[in-house]
Order: sequence, then structure tokens, then C-alpha cells
Amino acid sequence: MAISVVQRAADIFGFSVEFRGYRAGDSALAELGEALPEETIQGVRSSDAAIKGPVGETAKDVIVRLRQMFDLYANLRPAKVYPGVRPLMDGVDILIVRENTEDLYKGYEFELPGSAVALKVVTERASRRIAEYAFREAERRRKHVTIVHKSNVMPKTDGLFGRVAKEVASSHPGVSYREMYVDAASMALIRDPRSFDVLLTMNVYGDILSDEAAQVVGGLGMAPSANIGEKMALFEPVHGSAPDIAGKGLANPYATVLSAAMMLDWLSQAKGDPRLEKASKLVESAAVTALRRGIATPDLGGKYKTSEVGKGLEAVMVEL
Amino acid sequence: MAISVVQRAADIFGFSVEFRGYRAGDSALAELGEALPEETIQGVRSSDAAIKGPVGETAKDVIVRLRQMFDLYANLRPAKVYPGVRPLMDGVDILIVRENTEDLYKGYEFELPGSAVALKVVTERASRRIAEYAFREAERRRKHVTIVHKSNVMPKTDGLFGRVAKEVASSHPGVSYREMYVDAASMALIRDPRSFDVLLTMNVYGDILSDEAAQVVGGLGMAPSANIGEKMALFEPVHGSAPDIAGKGLANPYATVLSAAMMLDWLSQAKGDPRLEKASKLVESAAVTALRRGIATPDLGGKYKTSEVGKGLEAVMVEL
Ligand SMILES: CC(C)[C@H](C(=O)O)[C@@H](O)C(=O)O
Ligand SMILES: CC(C)[C@H](C(=O)O)[C@@H](O)C(=O)O
Repeated sequence: MAISVVQRAADIFGFSVEFRGYRAGDSALAELGEALPEETIQGVRSSDAAIKGPVGETAKDVIVRLRQMFDLYANLRPAKVYPGVRPLMDGVDILIVRENTEDLYKGYEFELPGSAVALKVVTERASRRIAEYAFREAERRRKHVTIVHKSNVMPKTDGLFGRVAKEVASSHPGVSYREMYVDAASMALIRDPRSFDVLLTMNVYGDILSDEAAQVVGGLGMAPSANIGEKMALFEPVHGSAPDIAGKGLANPYATVLSAAMMLDWLSQAKGDPRLEKASKLVESAAVTALRRGIATPDLGGKYKTSEVGKGLEAVMVEL
Repeated sequence: MAISVVQRAADIFGFSVEFRGYRAGDSALAELGEALPEETIQGVRSSDAAIKGPVGETAKDVIVRLRQMFDLYANLRPAKVYPGVRPLMDGVDILIVRENTEDLYKGYEFELPGSAVALKVVTERASRRIAEYAFREAERRRKHVTIVHKSNVMPKTDGLFGRVAKEVASSHPGVSYREMYVDAASMALIRDPRSFDVLLTMNVYGDILSDEAAQVVGGLGMAPSANIGEKMALFEPVHGSAPDIAGKGLANPYATVLSAAMMLDWLSQAKGDPRLEKASKLVESAAVTALRRGIATPDLGGKYKTSEVGKGLEAVMVEL
């Protein structure tokens, strides 16, 4: 459905886009014997960008592997209030920039007799590039970064992350910043979410805080995300698969549609093509307009099926 | 101030309690050269229980060290709605049971050229005793445990924790349970906090989720905590020191008073003395009554100074 929305945007702005579909996840594991088949990896490799749906319990073997394999180091998670949802507070607009390749997600885990150990890995290089990413994004936004870690308890690993982030801050004098421990950040996201513009953090904290922030703005129904590398990027809704409504045509497509809008924005920068940026903006504003008109699935209190939301969105795009 | 409240409770129920004071934290570091002087360690060792105030930036060298040193393995963090605060939702009453001795708090951190590594350690023994603690507490409450981890990404460490917790669950058939990934839990605490009774989790997740839960019920002003070991226990407010109001007599004492109530409850079990349990209940109900009457510091919208709240509480205790 997000595909036809992008297709429609392409028609409107006169560019072409080719979609190819590949299998991944629980159903691929069951039917093909592998959660992430080689064909899918090759498919991602040969594309300009990828968009991924929920995959189920095999998430680690799919998304964590793809992030590592293609070095998709920047996980962007906007948490923004959209019409028709019930947020804790209006006017929240946060961009979480989560380091996406290291920390405990590196996957170094060992079993010992009666115990297990995992390695939390933090490198200067990865800390620097994600901090650069966050400060550059802040320049396009409200010019403020909150650096989140727990260096009081982990002075070496989180300390390194914080130190490098502050070095990067000093080379972006137009952007102000503050540092916050992760526990304090989990409170501040509820107490004072409007005080956040860009939130820069490490992988595990980003996983937890981005879901929390999504709930602050009304839940995962509207939560898109991007996994961005040097040459390739992969976009996905934050929500998982909802087995209880699968196949009923009731899935809320907005998070995927907004992920597609992020994809168009990224592609416009990657290709230097302003038509794609216009397409991205159109998709997002069509989503806002459609939501204002109540074009929504039952989880948002609407009466539309997934495919009807798609048709509604396309109609709004043509109109706008 | 919490001291005179406990003293008053002792007078009322006819038991005796002796308090000794020891230095720790930023000011001890500045004045004595050590954040946790040997004398303080000995003082804690020779007591039945300890109560600790906020210590500042040296927290790791004080509280994390004391937790390890005395093997205070169970960190209890109630998140309960009290009168006079503004919670996200009424009727929330959660007990977070946080493993308090291992995970990344073990302190095994290493610097390498351009990087750093920390070890996340999970043992079967520590997982089992904290799970036992949580299920026993659930038996005294609403008989439900939510087990929180991230075994989809860390199958060995978090997997061990989850597996042991489920083994323990099977030996407590009167308590029902569910499992939740930590990111989902950070959402559920906002969306549906009343669905939680006991929340059992690992050290790092417990740090983050307990602050989040405290904010859900109105902030840290009312957040007590307990660090419990086999023979000794240490109680502390969750909030830190507030340098901006230090010395002005405006600090909100309720979190410390409620920590003292937890201490009396624990001591009553440790000593098998029902008078202490009555004292604990009296201190807590006096706090509730005082809050209903608006006996509160400015952070809670009241006009009372710290010492006046203390006097008000004591008066209510005598009255009840
Ligand atoms: C499904 C899981 C592996 C994944 C993660 O932990 O990163 C998800 O929670 C997310 O945040 O994208
Ligand atoms: C101060 C800090 C070391 C401590 C922790 O991280 O455990 C605090 O945040 C807490 O939760 O008690």
C-alpha cells in the first residue's frame, strides 16, 4: 500500500521508481528455511533503498543483521504528534538519533557454566559519526541536541560516547546541547517532552527511549523509522506484526507510509533530486490531511480498512 | 527529619531505635578525601539497616559500591499514586523489583585504543534469587508478575534471566505472569500502567523503567526505594540531591519518609517484630493523610518547609 502511495507521488512529480519484493522474517523461515534468505540480501544490496515490514520473532536475524551487514549506523526515530491520535502533550516533535551498530547489539554473547556474558562495545569512530549525524540533523531543525548516556555508572564506555559527542558539539557552535543520564531522560520524556529537539543516544537506550517517546506522542501507529548508512538506507515502521489482526485488512498503514516519506527525503539527498524531496513532503502532508479527515483504521478510532486508507491518501495527494 | 518520624513511631509502639550518622558522597569526598570512608562502611556493617540521602556525582562510588559490597541484591521501587501529586493516571500501584548486583553495574569496563568494552554479566544464581523475591512479593500483593528483558536481541544473557524467571514462576502457581520486551514495557508503563503489579527486571532496565514509572505516578517527590540483601538492607529516596534548593529547607522529605516506612516494614520481617510493621503502616498512612491536608513542600504546590512537613507528619501520627 505504501508502494502505491510512492508510485502516485512519482507520477505527480514525474520521476520513476521501481519496486522489487523480497521475503524475510518468520514466514520466510517457515517456508524457505531462512529468516533472511541470500536472495533478499542481494536484493537489498542492489537497491538504492529498502523498505521493510514487520517480521515477527525473527527480528534479530533480519533487522539487526541487516543493520550490521550494511553498516546502517544511524537509526532515526521521529516522535511527532499527528492529528487524530491521543498524545500525552501537544506540540511534541522529537527526533531520536540512535547509534545502530554497536553497544550490546554487536551480538558478542557467551555462555559459561551457570552464567552468561555479553560485550557492550563502544568505539570512538561510531560515536563520532552518529554524533555528527545528530548535530547535522539538529541544524535542519530547532538546533538543540540532548546527549543521553549513563557515564556516571559506565565511565569508560558511556564516558567515551559522551566525550566524543561533546567534541562534536564544539564543532557545531550553532547548535546548543545538554547532557542527561538515561534514567533522567526517561522521566523528562514524560514530564517535559517539548524540551527535546534531537535526542542523541546509544543503541540500547535508543531502543527503550524511542518506544517510550512514541507512546508519549500517541503510540506506534504513527512511528516511522530510518536505518541509514553511507550508501544505503532501510526504512521500517517501528511497530511489529500484529498477529491478532493479520490478514484482516485492518493494519494501520501510516507508520509505513511515513517511513516511505522518510525514504523519499533520504533519496532526494542521496541523488540530489529535489523532486523526491517534494514527493516526501507531499506524502507527509497528505497523511496529516487524511488523518484530520478521519481516514484511519480502527486502532485510531476510524472505520477504514488498510486498502481504503491507501486510496484515501492517494486521493488527497492528487488534491493537494 | 525522617529520623524524628521513625523515633516518634518507636515512641508510639514502644520499641527503641538508635540512629548513628555517617558521611558519604560529594561532600565527604571534598572534606575527607573519600566518597565512602571506611568508617561509614563499618557503620553500615554494624547496623541492622541503613538509610541514605542523596550524595551527588559520587553516586557510583557510594551506592553502587554499597550494593555490591553488602550484596544488596533486590532493589525495590514502588510506584504508587499519592494524594496531591499529578499522575498520568489514577490508581497505579506498581512494585518494580530490580536485580541490583550484576548486569553492566558489575563495573567490568576496559579501555582499548579508540574503543571501550563493558561486560554485561548475568548469573543463574542472581537471576533465581531476584525472581524468587519478586514472586514472593507478588504473593503479598495482587499476584501478578511482568518479567521484563530483551531476550530477542540477547538470547544468552537476557535469555538466561527470562528462562530462570519462568522456572521460578512455575513454582509459584498462585501468581500469574507475562513476559515483555523492555522496549514494549517502556510503552506499556505509559499506555496501561494499571496492568502492572510486580515488574521484575534486570539492573540497567530497572534503572530506566523505575524512573519512568516514578514519573507516571507524578515524579520523584514520592519515590522511595529499598536495597535488600540477606542480612542487611539500605533504604534511599530515588531522587538525587537538588543543588538549587540545598540548604534552603525546601527539600521534599516524603521520598525519604516513605523509604523509612519501607525500612520499618523490612525490619519487622527481619526481626519478627509486629510492632515495627505497625509503625511502618502508621508512617505511610500519616504521609497519605498529611498530603491530603496539603502539608507539602513547594515542589508539590505546598507552602511548607521541610521541617514543618516533619512536624505536621508527627502530629498526624499521634492523631491517627
Ligand atoms: C525487533 C528488535 C530486534 C528491534 C531492536 O531492538 O532494535 C526493535 O525493537 C527496534 O527498535 O527496531
Ligand atoms: C546514581 C546511580 C548510580 C543510580 C543507579 O544507576 O542505580 C541511580 O540512578 C539509581 O537508580 O539508584
